[in-house]
Amino acid sequence: MIAVDRKSRKPLQRQIYDAYRSAILDGGLRSGQRIPSTRVLATELHVSRFPVLNAYAQLLAEGYFQSRIGAGTVVSSSLPDQFIASGPAHTRAAAVHRGPRPVARRSSVSPHPEPSPWLGGLGPFGVGQVAFDQFPHHIWSQLIARRARNPNAQSFHYGDVMGLLPLRETVASYLRTARSLRCEAEQVMIVSGSQHALELTARVLLDKASPVWIEEPGYRLARIIFLVTGCRLVPVPVDGEGLDVSAGIRRCRHARAAFVTPSHQFPLGATMSAPRRLQLLEWAQRSGSWIIEDDYDSEYRYESLPIASLQGLDSNSRVLYIGTFSKVLFPSLRLGYLVIPKDLFDRFAAARRAMDLCPPTFYQEVLTDFIGEGHFARHIRRMRSLYHERRRALVMALERELGDTVQVLGSEAGMHLAISLKTDRITDVQVTDVQIDDVRIAERAAQQQLWMWPLSRAYVAKPSRCGLILGFGSAAVEEIPRAVHRLRQLLLGRK
Amino acid sequence: MIAVDRKSRKPLQRQIYDAYRSAILDGGLRSGQRIPSTRVLATELHVSRFPVLNAYAQLLAEGYFQSRIGAGTVVSSSLPDQFIASGPAHTRAAAVHRGPRPVARRSSVSPHPEPSPWLGGLGPFGVGQVAFDQFPHHIWSQLIARRARNPNAQSFHYGDVMGLLPLRETVASYLRTARSLRCEAEQVMIVSGSQHALELTARVLLDKASPVWIEEPGYRLARIIFLVTGCRLVPVPVDGEGLDVSAGIRRCRHARAAFVTPSHQFPLGATMSAPRRLQLLEWAQRSGSWIIEDDYDSEYRYESLPIASLQGLDSNSRVLYIGTFSKVLFPSLRLGYLVIPKDLFDRFAAARRAMDLCPPTFYQEVLTDFIGEGHFARHIRRMRSLYHERRRALVMALERELGDTVQVLGSEAGMHLAISLKTDRITDVQVTDVQIDDVRIAERAAQQQLWMWPLSRAYVAKPSRCGLILGFGSAAVEEIPRAVHRLRQLLLGRK
Repeated sequence: MIAVDRKSRKPLQRQIYDAYRSAILDGGLRSGQRIPSTRVLATELHVSRFPVLNAYAQLLAEGYFQSRIGAGTVVSSSLPDQFIASGPAHTRAAAVHRGPRPVARRSSVSPHPEPSPWLGGLGPFGVGQVAFDQFPHHIWSQLIARRARNPNAQSFHYGDVMGLLPLRETVASYLRTARSLRCEAEQVMIVSGSQHALELTARVLLDKASPVWIEEPGYRLARIIFLVTGCRLVPVPVDGEGLDVSAGIRRCRHARAAFVTPSHQFPLGATMSAPRRLQLLEWAQRSGSWIIEDDYDSEYRYESLPIASLQGLDSNSRVLYIGTFSKVLFPSLRLGYLVIPKDLFDRFAAARRAMDLCPPTFYQEVLTDFIGEGHFARHIRRMRSLYHERRRALVMALERELGDTVQVLGSEAGMHLAISLKTDRITDVQVTDVQIDDVRIAERAAQQQLWMWPLSRAYVAKPSRCGLILGFGSAAVEEIPRAVHRLRQLLLGRK
Repeated sequence: MIAVDRKSRKPLQRQIYDAYRSAILDGGLRSGQRIPSTRVLATELHVSRFPVLNAYAQLLAEGYFQSRIGAGTVVSSSLPDQFIASGPAHTRAAAVHRGPRPVARRSSVSPHPEPSPWLGGLGPFGVGQVAFDQFPHHIWSQLIARRARNPNAQSFHYGDVMGLLPLRETVASYLRTARSLRCEAEQVMIVSGSQHALELTARVLLDKASPVWIEEPGYRLARIIFLVTGCRLVPVPVDGEGLDVSAGIRRCRHARAAFVTPSHQFPLGATMSAPRRLQLLEWAQRSGSWIIEDDYDSEYRYESLPIASLQGLDSNSRVLYIGTFSKVLFPSLRLGYLVIPKDLFDRFAAARRAMDLCPPTFYQEVLTDFIGEGHFARHIRRMRSLYHERRRALVMALERELGDTVQVLGSEAGMHLAISLKTDRITDVQVTDVQIDDVRIAERAAQQQLWMWPLSRAYVAKPSRCGLILGFGSAAVEEIPRAVHRLRQLLLGRK
């Protein structure tokens, strides 16, 4: 019944253990059945007695064997019979999914991801893609190597739940200077990007059925967090001045929170005007609501100074401010920050600890060096002029090729722009009910390696506008005219 | 009213913008009040007209100014009055926390962290601390430098929500060989450590009021996740064979899940016996429950083969298997893995996407190299013999110094052991109601740079056992006798 293979790399002890364990689990050996003594088995197998002794000791320790006085060693009688002998181990352990398999209700809420082929590749006009080839890899890699050469024990143990203090100080100082925030390092929590910051914010501030204002159209992944939390979504329209605060108040004065992208509304690109900002802050203060300010790409403005943050105008500590390094450095870094009102520190720290203990240390150290030594500011300056050129090239090409067909929306900022499509001009795609099927256009574009997003997916309710969201972060100036020409062919047919 | 400082590094345009914005927000300029023309202001300030034009354009764009036909430029009348003029900006924007500040109910559930001074330092007998100085830093840093020198665009963009495929393949193959799992790469999700894996599991599988078996005593941070989720905790006692499954069935047959550490029970150190394992799997299958197997340090067993995982015995895909690199490499890496039954992939992917999109890429690449090139297996072998020595030195020293006072619990495994204290021998610390105040002992020990954990904090109900949890991962063999001698002095007084 038990055989060993001396040529195997598996130790003899393990072979003997495995053979008995399988025989018991497969039902080849039954409860109470007697096992040969170690001496007998060693002789039979022509092996030394030590591996046999070790294997038996382990099988006894794990409860597969029992020692009975006067009866030597037997197969344990306490193994549940119904479990044994229902077939050989390798088939039994196959992926069988019998019986009830209950999951959380909120897991069922989470929308099954709709197919989004436009997320599938890199290149024009992928949204959220940066100019990877322009990143100063040599500097980054030098800083990495320098940190890696000088390890210290503290950097290898669990870090602070709020993030590495020197990085938090660096970020706070950057935000005060560049984004007019009023914040101290103690308010800054380092997170794994904006999504993580939003998730934490929802966890600490929002309950099931809490009404939450969201921008309509808006950022889909934020919406999903509120949905999973069980919040009641209150879509509030945006116009050229950003979120229509009066409309929000009319729809739901006592929302628990408002999610906004005031510097550069996603996806339509408006900048929230000063009157709207003050109105929003005033509403929040009056109704005891929170404002979640997602400032995802405000580093890039091309025709004016960067817009000062909402957080910096807030006199009642009602704003949770979210920023990310995904757009100014690169997405796979997974580092961002959350600026927290002082009375909420403990709650955020507790929620973070329960969620993932702390952020990884090494990249925080490298990033601290990168910012502290001036590379960050230099990189932003370079990228600002690069993206400005790319935006200009894109707008020019769109006007030249598709001037009668599309309208460019939004202010001169960021790494993407939205275009709306004029129904009567589009001939070559499905048009239903005077709505253009922008999803179908984006799907067809993805087949041709053009990665733009359909605007209609950014709406909760029936889209009031159809069009496309075009990222220009990863598209070189030279390739933009050709890519736009291909877009024209797609929209208007080959001519 | 408006002044500029030519020596300032702040651009003139920004100075003019800031001055008007502050004057408006502070109430120094009122709605409708007329603003000098750009020409007049430029002359007054002795500056070129361009910075004035730019600043005015921005103030108009952001809605602080309005253009009135025939009246030139005025302060916008749409700024909400009640917001303006409530004091100078710098005091208004101080951290005021007036009005209702509602937070999520589950955030209030999350226990305010009790002071835990024993988490405050590195050294003997810190739990969860590895031999930082024994980590092959030079190899790690070479692998980092090699990866950093060869960037590719794909590595810089968002990664797969499940983690980097080559790492998932490497982990799956390691788990099949070393831990007897039955799994494919597609079942492996890379996470930020065990806490993150548990958090995701709770999110997908558990509802408010779902009953969950937890080990009593058990791992406190796991408990917190179930508490925050709103689950009903069902403490199930552990004994020398691990979780007492029959007791669990008596207390709550239809629990939604059971959380277990079968390889090396935390904190008491038992290994779950084969009969108990089969009983647990059988219960899960019968009652349609899930098993969450936290296999946090099973790489380190000193007197026997590694124990095969529960997951590998499971014939009904009921086990969620969690492992981490925090113990075998180092904690601040924040990488671990979760092995998911095949029918739950989509739900876990959706939950993960909503939570933080994907893990950071770079360290996953380095780790893939580290494992693939054999460094990982070598490191584990070295650490296994190192920790074995450390454990032996600790047990010997405890027997020598405190043989009558303490009892060492648990099997020869892992990086920590628990000791129970005999009440009648402890003279120098507070003893209440025949219970020893182990929290007080741990607090006093922390003052003397001994970082052990009190056992009583591992219980949900009234502790049935008091004692201490001693980590030996970061304590060199040479320092252990002295550290134990200090512990003796602490427990028995100086003599």
